Amino acid sequence: MTKTESQEANAQKPGVVDTRLGPHFRLQSVPIGAVRMGEGFWRPRMQANVREGIPTFLRLMEEHGVVDNFRRAAGRSDAPFRQGSFGSESDLYKWLEGAAFALQSEDLPELRQTVDQIIDDIAAAQEADGYLYLGTLSSAGPPRERFSNLARSHELYCAGHLMQAAIAHYRATGRDQLLHVAIKFADYLTQEFGPGKREQTDGHPEIELALIELFRTTGEQRYLELAGFFLGLPQSLENLPPIAERPALVGHCVRSGYICAGGTDWYAETGDDKMWRNLLHLWHDLVTGKIYVTGGVGARYQGEAFGEPYELPSARAYAETCAQISHVMWAWRMLLVTGEARFADTIERILYNAFLSGVSLSGTEYFYRNPLASDGGVERQPWFGCNCCPPNVHRTLGSLPGLIFSTSAEGLWVHLYDACRASLTAPDGSTVELAVDTRYPWEGVIDITISPERAQDFALFLRIPGWTSEARVSVNGEAAAGAVQPGGYHEVRRRWEAGDRVRLVLTMPARAVESHPRVAETRGCVALMRGPVVYCFESVDNVQVDVADLVLPLDAADPGGGFEGEWQPDLLGGVTVLRGPALSPAPSHAPGPLYRPYGSAPPPTMRKTDVTAIPYYAWANRGDSAMRVWLPVAQEAG
Amino acid sequence: MTKTESQEANAQKPGVVDTRLGPHFRLQSVPIGAVRMGEGFWRPRMQANVREGIPTFLRLMEEHGVVDNFRRAAGRSDAPFRQGSFGSESDLYKWLEGAAFALQSEDLPELRQTVDQIIDDIAAAQEADGYLYLGTLSSAGPPRERFSNLARSHELYCAGHLMQAAIAHYRATGRDQLLHVAIKFADYLTQEFGPGKREQTDGHPEIELALIELFRTTGEQRYLELAGFFLGLPQSLENLPPIAERPALVGHCVRSGYICAGGTDWYAETGDDKMWRNLLHLWHDLVTGKIYVTGGVGARYQGEAFGEPYELPSARAYAETCAQISHVMWAWRMLLVTGEARFADTIERILYNAFLSGVSLSGTEYFYRNPLASDGGVERQPWFGCNCCPPNVHRTLGSLPGLIFSTSAEGLWVHLYDACRASLTAPDGSTVELAVDTRYPWEGVIDITISPERAQDFALFLRIPGWTSEARVSVNGEAAAGAVQPGGYHEVRRRWEAGDRVRLVLTMPARAVESHPRVAETRGCVALMRGPVVYCFESVDNVQVDVADLVLPLDAADPGGGFEGEWQPDLLGGVTVLRGPALSPAPSHAPGPLYRPYGSAPPPTMRKTDVTAIPYYAWANRGDSAMRVWLPVAQEAG
Repeated sequence: MTKTESQEANAQKPGVVDTRLGPHFRLQSVPIGAVRMGEGFWRPRMQANVREGIPTFLRLMEEHGVVDNFRRAAGRSDAPFRQGSFGSESDLYKWLEGAAFALQSEDLPELRQTVDQIIDDIAAAQEADGYLYLGTLSSAGPPRERFSNLARSHELYCAGHLMQAAIAHYRATGRDQLLHVAIKFADYLTQEFGPGKREQTDGHPEIELALIELFRTTGEQRYLELAGFFLGLPQSLENLPPIAERPALVGHCVRSGYICAGGTDWYAETGDDKMWRNLLHLWHDLVTGKIYVTGGVGARYQGEAFGEPYELPSARAYAETCAQISHVMWAWRMLLVTGEARFADTIERILYNAFLSGVSLSGTEYFYRNPLASDGGVERQPWFGCNCCPPNVHRTLGSLPGLIFSTSAEGLWVHLYDACRASLTAPDGSTVELAVDTRYPWEGVIDITISPERAQDFALFLRIPGWTSEARVSVNGEAAAGAVQPGGYHEVRRRWEAGDRVRLVLTMPARAVESHPRVAETRGCVALMRGPVVYCFESVDNVQVDVADLVLPLDAADPGGGFEGEWQPDLLGGVTVLRGPALSPAPSHAPGPLYRPYGSAPPPTMRKTDVTAIPYYAWANRGDSAMRVWLPVAQEAG
Repeated sequence: MTKTESQEANAQKPGVVDTRLGPHFRLQSVPIGAVRMGEGFWRPRMQANVREGIPTFLRLMEEHGVVDNFRRAAGRSDAPFRQGSFGSESDLYKWLEGAAFALQSEDLPELRQTVDQIIDDIAAAQEADGYLYLGTLSSAGPPRERFSNLARSHELYCAGHLMQAAIAHYRATGRDQLLHVAIKFADYLTQEFGPGKREQTDGHPEIELALIELFRTTGEQRYLELAGFFLGLPQSLENLPPIAERPALVGHCVRSGYICAGGTDWYAETGDDKMWRNLLHLWHDLVTGKIYVTGGVGARYQGEAFGEPYELPSARAYAETCAQISHVMWAWRMLLVTGEARFADTIERILYNAFLSGVSLSGTEYFYRNPLASDGGVERQPWFGCNCCPPNVHRTLGSLPGLIFSTSAEGLWVHLYDACRASLTAPDGSTVELAVDTRYPWEGVIDITISPERAQDFALFLRIPGWTSEARVSVNGEAAAGAVQPGGYHEVRRRWEAGDRVRLVLTMPARAVESHPRVAETRGCVALMRGPVVYCFESVDNVQVDVADLVLPLDAADPGGGFEGEWQPDLLGGVTVLRGPALSPAPSHAPGPLYRPYGSAPPPTMRKTDVTAIPYYAWANRGDSAMRVWLPVAQEAG
């Protein structure tokens, strides 16, 4: 294909979410293949994902029988059935979707061939009527009846991930073998489930958004209707009302993110106002009381669940990697519906912090939980009893090029900033080439060169992150008209000609952030941020002190606490560290009574010391360590 | 019996723990029946326990089939077997022990008769070889094999509570029907378990301390040996090393308290140094990082478990009532071994706060968890899915008269202060009558009249609580010699004559207590205490403010924050409340962003307001409410 043909093909392709027909999408998502990552922040991580993470995890799945289970079901193997956690086949489906996203970005013949073989085994395992679920093969007992334990079996959850994998693979390759498997299964489900038929749903949502994406892919209205049917049911496992009626974010965070994403898809296609109003209400609940400064979601181990508003413990944060991912899924759909920057701000908060912390710099080891403090013993693992997180990381990293831009009838939207080249579709259907050059998130200068196929009028919407205190936009060296407001999209509307240069400068000093006074655990504390990146103090960088005792001497006149960024190309894959002053008690706080009369102990002698903070996402990559995101602020005259 | 005969009988009776022969007990425990509670703090609660709590809970156990299960096993009933949680028969055994303790205090013919009937049903349910466990009767499936799921079945846990109930009943009444059931079961266990036999133990400790008490009661050495065998095994359910080797307090708090109590019993009988050294080490772990200011034990819902040191969340405190009780059991044994006041201080901290909060003022409703903060919706219940706590409350309240005093070769010990009369045994074996008159814990004046049968020399050891800043002791109006040091026993050694009067005055202003700086959740906060009583702010007393927003304006010069005690005879059964000044933001903190730049928000306008604190144990007795134990200290010049 020539470049122009490729552009045209891309223009007709859907993005991560197919927004082309949904009447309530304000924005159109951009095909993954339309964006080519440059020498920026994300490409090394995406390469580690494709070159190390994806093949290593497939090898582990083969070792643990996850793929053999399909071969056995297909009669192609005598390997014993090996039961992982409920629905472990979903791990393979998510992995497949991740591989398919990678294949949307670049042609990787070996991976393409491996994927084709696995798809062939999956297809062969499908039963004649379309049903496909391996949980019934457990050697521990007789085959269980289909759908007999939907609360826990993950049958529909697996079906949903199968559908998403099939769609991603179809979009990547045009091959439809897996898509037909998914369609056959979906057709079977439409026969089995619905009003007057089985009136139950899965304990773990996923089928809803998958069916809607399958509807978008096939045009088959019944899939949308079935998704709506499932969305209208209460969640029996946790005894929660349907998502359109849920009064607050409660229960299992991953499930919550998935069902909210599905609900948003439903709104986008149907305009269901009740659903939309409640999604906005639940979003407010999330961002005003239930999300960590890192973008982590989930305060409680018990039930892997949301806590009460402001219940955000640091060391006991659950913040499951999958929960962060499911909230990116939700936020992305909210953004596509509204074009409001607050949703992109949350995506950014999650991606650079509690999502990315979920994977090692090597790309092969994963956090399930992402705490904000540790006294040691917290390490990433290559494999888990429940492996939901690793392949969710694979597919999220694979999808990233699709989350950077959108288009709309008004023009082009830039949500995330990273070095890349993109071929986008202008409102008139012609192609616009964008070149983004930036060292973001380490530097706040973003240069965008815009080359429309033909000169024309449209708007360029640049997200101005809510975290910045000052932003400037210039076009071809001249300051753009109008105030640039953080927390929204700055619209540059003009007649664009090939080679027009837009420069966005975001002021990016180190800054101390405090939490709402009702967050008991971080009262009187601050976290350091620079740009979208949350920092932490890791013991390996601060061996002269105990990070559990550190306090920061701040005053309101210096909101950055005297911390300065310093680029370290050889540290942790290249990071900007923050260096600055802290106080540490001498001796350490560790001994001493647990309770004592207020004011009875003399204030400890505090020693000033220079400390180093690293990006939170990069911690725990250098062996066992202690870590703190939040540090108390030193009180004047203790 | 004449009074003198009663005294002699008591002198030969064991207390809650039979310390008479254990070579490593420094102190002797005093029979429950030797102490008659007066018009003090505990008697109304013990009366509510005997008159309301115990009969109401028996009625509920009958309604739920807990007693019928025994009748069915005995062939005396056709009622269907009704499975509660694992080992629900232990609820009945603990209830029986509580009833038996009550019968040690006073003759209650109706209760005695009810108890005898229940014992008859239990005895009839015992199998011919001595085995007695109802879990195998589940109608859900075929009878399970004995001891086939010890990690979860609670078979030995139930056996232990049966033994303790039998011993208490024997001590109360001299009747030995249940004791013979226990002995027969214990004999069966010695045949089944031990080196070269079944080498496993129960997932929930209890059998260890029960067997040792049965050894003390019968003199049968094999029971002690079997207890030692069980104590030497790892705890398989939670994968924990034997208690003598456990490096820290981890895992399920109730189980931990029980096994530590059993380990202390083992040390008292055998002098096992390794056990003792580790018990002291674990105690240190408890009091320096893992016990709430209320005496609550257990930071985590997940596993009902200890957290890391300093992990003490308030609203999410688990602090199961049974965990507090098990730590009283442990502390009591540590006290009997050592005569060290720190153990009695912890007993006091627990009893007046996070133990007593476990039961309503009515005596009939119970907390399973005892959080230190709530935004509402936390209510005591009369019945639970797992009913371990209510009968544990019954037996602990019943045992209280036995925890007030001890004796030793040196003299008499007073651990807890409450109005009562006691007949204790002097070192020469003669009787000493003690009369304690006090309004403790509301007032710090304790008058003790000592009347030995014959004038003689011995020491009176008075616990001087660690919480007091000043204590004075006088005898017959003259200040006693020697400094009175808080945190120890003050020894008054003299020739005692009938009618000698000792007065102990403990200074008891309201005081603000702070926690160790590493307790993240209460950093910068204080809790108010007065004497041993921890206070809290409940919304019902402070309707003009939101207790979630309150801060206390303290300075080091006024450690009580301006709070004054005020006796309220008609409030909550009679309590001393604390009244004083607090600050409240106007408007409330509730709205506002979750994260913001440090110092970016103007300090809220703080309104001064008078607030009322009530004893923590009494909260949630007046309908749904919000509550806080810890409040932030207002920072000067915000």
